[in-house]
Amino acid sequence: MTLEGRVLELAGEVGPLDEKATARARERHLALTKPPGSLGRLEDIGVRLSAMAGEVPPPAPEEPAVVICAGDHGVLARGVSPWPKEVTATMVENFCAGGAAANAIARTIGARISILDVGVAAGLERHPLLRTAKVRPGTDDLSRGPAMGREDAAKAVMSGAGIAEELIESGVDLLVTGDMGIGNTTPAAALISAFTGRSPREVTGRGTGIDDKTLELKVGVIEEALRLHEPDLDDPLGTLAALGGLEHAAIVGLILMGAVYGVPVVLDGIVSDSAALVACALSTDCVGYLVAGHLSAEPGARVALEHLGLEAVFDLRMRLGEGTGGLLAVPVVQAGARVLREMATMEEMGIG
Amino acid sequence: MTLEGRVLELAGEVGPLDEKATARARERHLALTKPPGSLGRLEDIGVRLSAMAGEVPPPAPEEPAVVICAGDHGVLARGVSPWPKEVTATMVENFCAGGAAANAIARTIGARISILDVGVAAGLERHPLLRTAKVRPGTDDLSRGPAMGREDAAKAVMSGAGIAEELIESGVDLLVTGDMGIGNTTPAAALISAFTGRSPREVTGRGTGIDDKTLELKVGVIEEALRLHEPDLDDPLGTLAALGGLEHAAIVGLILMGAVYGVPVVLDGIVSDSAALVACALSTDCVGYLVAGHLSAEPGARVALEHLGLEAVFDLRMRLGEGTGGLLAVPVVQAGARVLREMATMEEMGIG
Repeated sequence: MTLEGRVLELAGEVGPLDEKATARARERHLALTKPPGSLGRLEDIGVRLSAMAGEVPPPAPEEPAVVICAGDHGVLARGVSPWPKEVTATMVENFCAGGAAANAIARTIGARISILDVGVAAGLERHPLLRTAKVRPGTDDLSRGPAMGREDAAKAVMSGAGIAEELIESGVDLLVTGDMGIGNTTPAAALISAFTGRSPREVTGRGTGIDDKTLELKVGVIEEALRLHEPDLDDPLGTLAALGGLEHAAIVGLILMGAVYGVPVVLDGIVSDSAALVACALSTDCVGYLVAGHLSAEPGARVALEHLGLEAVFDLRMRLGEGTGGLLAVPVVQAGARVLREMATMEEMGIG
Repeated sequence: MTLEGRVLELAGEVGPLDEKATARARERHLALTKPPGSLGRLEDIGVRLSAMAGEVPPPAPEEPAVVICAGDHGVLARGVSPWPKEVTATMVENFCAGGAAANAIARTIGARISILDVGVAAGLERHPLLRTAKVRPGTDDLSRGPAMGREDAAKAVMSGAGIAEELIESGVDLLVTGDMGIGNTTPAAALISAFTGRSPREVTGRGTGIDDKTLELKVGVIEEALRLHEPDLDDPLGTLAALGGLEHAAIVGLILMGAVYGVPVVLDGIVSDSAALVACALSTDCVGYLVAGHLSAEPGARVALEHLGLEAVFDLRMRLGEGTGGLLAVPVVQAGARVLREMATMEEMGIG
């Protein structure tokens, strides 16, 4: 089977949520020692975990892991970011050494951390936390031609799926999507514009903090790319190959494999949100396994999440990526399961 | 010294935030391996922890504890809640047995839990988690006279302060305020109306989920109480005694003692927010040690937090109390400290 065929097969294996478990979980919430509905969205999260697992109460995620997918971007040559591409590799070193924001937050919440090199332009030293699955050393400039070939995109998706499967088989029961790649909010905004139909101007933000002039240039580059590729929404993989990044593709694989296993996948910011649009275009059932960890400050994040019908757990005006926002939402997801598992019922306490 | 004198003395011991530490923490954030400002409000939280402790980087809270202050309410006789007051005592039993939402969430984030009985109407069995400091078995009806005497209010404040001091001396480095008391959103809304000048209608909500008719009655009861007492904002303790509850008073003490020790105090919902207004009226510096854990679904919560100039960490439309919303914010506070402590600098990584 071709790599592309394997991606489509994986997407086809994603099953629907268990509606009976949804109903039973809602019923259970009504029986617990609290006024009905008083835990707000924490109740919804717990109900959805039940629907994912087909169990009431749901299993409580105890082994979260973040996978930071890393790649470089040919479109950087257009000047869409002031940071040089070498920073991608340096940040991978930083993740391996434990000195990045994602490391500090992963330690806070007790999450494992893995880095997946699917497309960093530089050679990287071996490290126990680093998985090398380099498809190619970065993408081509998406404004001048496809960012990568379809087979490359499919290979990156399957790399992400592969690490997700290994982690889940080794006990991981919650995945957080992370990304690193200088310039990667440009392909993210391009994908979001393509999949939601909103204009590049509406979905393009300042990424690491670019000035007005660079923002104008970035919007123009994305407009060019969309005119050039005329993305076909019935061909999500082709759209991903034309406009995306290798780390975006790997996150698509993380999401699909998490969903196949019925494991919650907590999305980080705009790069993850754009990958979620691709994954959900490949498999509509996929969205049921997604939790939007936070609302990135990038304008495209809100557009993507609205399109997916997801509401972010919180909005701390973060825009770093790396999985930082997704990681912070993990305790809320865990708590959503634990209240359903551990609370006494009104009947047990003789109330009502 | 009278009890009232001791409260005022305690409030006088709260010191200002360390402005130099604030500046140094902001500077440190600019040096870390991330685009400036990209951690959004997580950066602000870390900076404030530095200002509380007078240290850069700040200590990372590792021993959080929630104190659930419990009391009953004479105003329940007016029909402001459909739940009987016996539920307060039953829920204290539930906390002791580990079966309430607060227990499940405290276990999720690794927080200690204590229950402080400052005013439950029923006798309660002894339990290792339960501290008995019953000032009186519930308040009087605040719409017919003062809810309690000034000395009772002061005694409840000092009970809260006492347990906070003990916990901090035993290693607790972050306090979450919790409450339990059937009917206690009525005194909370009354206090918020008094301290912010907003009308009872604007700040009164449905508490556990009352119907329209009961909401009208509740607003009317609070209007009556405010007309009766004509609260004097230059006398925060008198206002607390007239309109408050014993658990509200105990939370005032928790806040004041936390602030005296420079320990972050994470507020839960509307009862805690109303107590924060009292504490900050007693000591304006107090607000610097407060973190608004979440935005309660009760309308008075937003009004109180705006008055205090605080922005909630998240909004999950929760309205349970018990400390549940405050507990969920603890990992975010911890992460705010840890990124400042643990991240590598640009210089160390050879970037820029």
